Amino acid sequence: MRENSGAHYLEKALSLKPLLNKKTVRPVKVTGEGEWLRDGGSLLLDFGTHLVGRITLALDCRRDDDLSPDSPLLVEFKFAEVLSELEERPYSGGMSRSWFQHETVHIDNPLEAFTLPRRYAFRYAKITFTANTSYSVRYAGCTVTAVTSADEAAIAPLPPQTSSLVRKIDETAVRTLRDCMQEVFEDGPKRDRRLWLGDLYLQARTNYYTFGNNDLVKRCLYLFAGLPHPDGLVSSAVFHEPVLRGQAWILHDYALFFIGTLADYYRATKDVETLRELWPVALRQAEAVAGSVHSDEYFHEDESIHADEDVHGGEDVHTDEDVHANADTRVAEYLPADRYFIDWCPSLDKTIPAEGVFIMMLKEASELAGILKRSKDAQRLAGIVGPGIARMRGYFRVESGLLVPASGQVSVLSQAFGVLSGVFDKATSRVIMKNTLALMDGGDIVRPVTPFAMHFLAEALVAADLRRDALKLIKDYWGGMVKEGADCFYEVYVPGNPDASPYGSPLMNSYCHAWSCTPAYFIRKYGFK
Amino acid sequence: MRENSGAHYLEKALSLKPLLNKKTVRPVKVTGEGEWLRDGGSLLLDFGTHLVGRITLALDCRRDDDLSPDSPLLVEFKFAEVLSELEERPYSGGMSRSWFQHETVHIDNPLEAFTLPRRYAFRYAKITFTANTSYSVRYAGCTVTAVTSADEAAIAPLPPQTSSLVRKIDETAVRTLRDCMQEVFEDGPKRDRRLWLGDLYLQARTNYYTFGNNDLVKRCLYLFAGLPHPDGLVSSAVFHEPVLRGQAWILHDYALFFIGTLADYYRATKDVETLRELWPVALRQAEAVAGSVHSDEYFHEDESIHADEDVHGGEDVHTDEDVHANADTRVAEYLPADRYFIDWCPSLDKTIPAEGVFIMMLKEASELAGILKRSKDAQRLAGIVGPGIARMRGYFRVESGLLVPASGQVSVLSQAFGVLSGVFDKATSRVIMKNTLALMDGGDIVRPVTPFAMHFLAEALVAADLRRDALKLIKDYWGGMVKEGADCFYEVYVPGNPDASPYGSPLMNSYCHAWSCTPAYFIRKYGFK
Repeated sequence: MRENSGAHYLEKALSLKPLLNKKTVRPVKVTGEGEWLRDGGSLLLDFGTHLVGRITLALDCRRDDDLSPDSPLLVEFKFAEVLSELEERPYSGGMSRSWFQHETVHIDNPLEAFTLPRRYAFRYAKITFTANTSYSVRYAGCTVTAVTSADEAAIAPLPPQTSSLVRKIDETAVRTLRDCMQEVFEDGPKRDRRLWLGDLYLQARTNYYTFGNNDLVKRCLYLFAGLPHPDGLVSSAVFHEPVLRGQAWILHDYALFFIGTLADYYRATKDVETLRELWPVALRQAEAVAGSVHSDEYFHEDESIHADEDVHGGEDVHTDEDVHANADTRVAEYLPADRYFIDWCPSLDKTIPAEGVFIMMLKEASELAGILKRSKDAQRLAGIVGPGIARMRGYFRVESGLLVPASGQVSVLSQAFGVLSGVFDKATSRVIMKNTLALMDGGDIVRPVTPFAMHFLAEALVAADLRRDALKLIKDYWGGMVKEGADCFYEVYVPGNPDASPYGSPLMNSYCHAWSCTPAYFIRKYGFK
Repeated sequence: MRENSGAHYLEKALSLKPLLNKKTVRPVKVTGEGEWLRDGGSLLLDFGTHLVGRITLALDCRRDDDLSPDSPLLVEFKFAEVLSELEERPYSGGMSRSWFQHETVHIDNPLEAFTLPRRYAFRYAKITFTANTSYSVRYAGCTVTAVTSADEAAIAPLPPQTSSLVRKIDETAVRTLRDCMQEVFEDGPKRDRRLWLGDLYLQARTNYYTFGNNDLVKRCLYLFAGLPHPDGLVSSAVFHEPVLRGQAWILHDYALFFIGTLADYYRATKDVETLRELWPVALRQAEAVAGSVHSDEYFHEDESIHADEDVHGGEDVHTDEDVHANADTRVAEYLPADRYFIDWCPSLDKTIPAEGVFIMMLKEASELAGILKRSKDAQRLAGIVGPGIARMRGYFRVESGLLVPASGQVSVLSQAFGVLSGVFDKATSRVIMKNTLALMDGGDIVRPVTPFAMHFLAEALVAADLRRDALKLIKDYWGGMVKEGADCFYEVYVPGNPDASPYGSPLMNSYCHAWSCTPAYFIRKYGFK
């Protein structure tokens, strides 16, 4: 098997499948405990914290003329990460209702502890006995077998002088990461339970400062490498279950984050063997996004892993034609904004953020090429990134001290990714970020709506030597969730707008979401207190 | 272990647990086949006949941008023995809604065939895809693993001159029995899936003329023997799952049918060892019902099988006191009518039917005592039954040629059980039954409402040498179900009243019910054509 073949990558990924750590957790509060229930009677279990796992319920039964039940028990389970998910609200969002963590089951033997077969992510469980049985049931016990591939013993304590808010933020971030660490780094354990490259990039960085499960990062890199699109671009996400396959979508920022994730992995591990094996994939992302590579020099798709075309995709995925139709020497055209995720802010002009990600990741690629002593590759990368750097410089408006695209839109993320591109000197970067903060403090500026995008703002503040402001952002934004009682950090958080959702309903939002875990990275890397 | 201990009986019963025969069945018609479905789209599967088993469904999936599903599939299954069960009707009956054969499941991998874990009894399956998934699904196949402990190869063909209606009735009866023959003789495989003594009495008789699975009868006799009430009366039903235990109820006719079932079993098998072992239980039923036995001479409860009092009953079941409070030397008081099932006809005066069952079964007991040469027991039984026979004679009204209790009510079942008691000579029996038939033909008489009670009418007609009328009854009554398209015989059948139900709703009725299978017994025993 060729070292750089997809099948080899997948085999390596599968060999790194982690064993899950299991812990038995019981509810801290059971509303309805001690009551005999039937026909609409319900229990509300509060486990006191966010969990991912399988639930087992035990009941006592009582009838007037007998001690045992004479019919199946019909039970509705509703699992919720936050209490508001239990409110009865109509749902008309675009995401499938099948994601709701609701189950209706018949328990044939109510005298025996019953384990639901599926995994849920939750703090609360509402259990309703919906049938007019001739017997009543009473709560007799419940356990959750909580699962994670993270090792909680690996978490170093924070320095004693750390403030209680920062401690709480760190703890929440660590819990968020823990519950997203399963057989892969999932984006959210409630939904959609997938390995997304954008999430992985941030999870992996946080992981190095917390759980240090480097093999899980390695496994995920190999999964992406093993399931490329026909043009060599990695999928934006991998479905590791129910059937292992790459996602059809291509997001250029996500593809580029493969490079950043590999670079961070190498810096954390010095694992040069993995770097060498995955280098062709990393380079391919840079070149394919830039549209400058038309040959299959670095990446040969291995047909053997596509035995089942229905499963691994084929006809329906983006083809070479799709990609090359947009290829051009000008970055503005080969970085079409709609191929970048950046944030869920619908009005955002993504030109500058996209350019910023491209430059950031091509610089990472250059560094890796240097480590591998691949000077030809390094040279090539420098050639690709050059025009982008020049264009980035051109977005700077001296009069406002801000980066502004042709549309004239002023956004936080244009400033953040501009600074993160490293194109500007420290002084200019400080000016840009200080102006950004000033505008955010009541001014007219397009703001990020996700913790994912907010991460890059915090990173840009650090990059501009504004660490105090970065800490303030973390305390205000992530701390805002903590003050609302969050057990984990949310997928979407817009202070003052609890109904904000990219899915038409907050019922579908994930309240434990990987891309929101980075406060632990900042707190631990920069000693934030 | 003592030969007559409950634990010994149970051990014997468990050793006779049958292996189930399995057969793969596919639907004969699939409405919705070939269509791409989602969000309310449904399939209607018709298997062409009644089945008991587990269902496996396979689907194809289609998305616009990909070939595989990106969310769980939410599927509602509704199983129905008759099409009317699929109508959307409110249910406010007393039986628990948990008996409805409805399941809502999340299929995490819609690309993989999915097997529901529970067993259902059905001809039809309605499968609705209830979530707004981003993909559609299409029927790709379905199999049912149909189960029964009956061996279909054992069924002898009917004589060639048998009419097509009689053939159809026999076939329906045999199918009814087949689908009720599982690990025990169940009353109905849809609900409540229990071993009831009244049903067993009729199933076993039909079994000897059809499947000949004598060991299953033996097993069921041992189950009843092993789970007695504290006073030695057998339960009216045994729950063989989810937890093996006796039912709390005592029905005196059912307890007495233990004797008849044992007598029939002996006649079919000449298995004197089983007869000898179970004789104390049979005798105890006669004596306990008669209230003449106050000692534990014949039956010693073995405490070892009651280790779990919660499961096998104890405090809450009827106690010795309950039974002996009603004990008296006069049959009218030790046969309180409300302890007899007889039929689901609410207005029925059960005095004569109860007396009839008592006499019938005590005569059976006497015969068994004779076989076992237990002359002391035989003498005792003769003493008990004597006053009942005298009273039965007294119910005959010369002027009307009918049996009438003190209430003055004229019912079919008073006549049938009167004749079956054997107290009257052939000529008188013929008069009684001819008068009954005349009144049934438009006259004012309380009629049976279940095939269970109708069986005894047919038997009484045979006993009165009115075989042609017995055949006509079978053709009219059971044939009525066949003409309505029945795949199996129903629990309740009142011609012209499809909504008749003892449960407040026909949705809860069983449409494959053990006690309705006896036409095959009559057809095969008496050569009905």
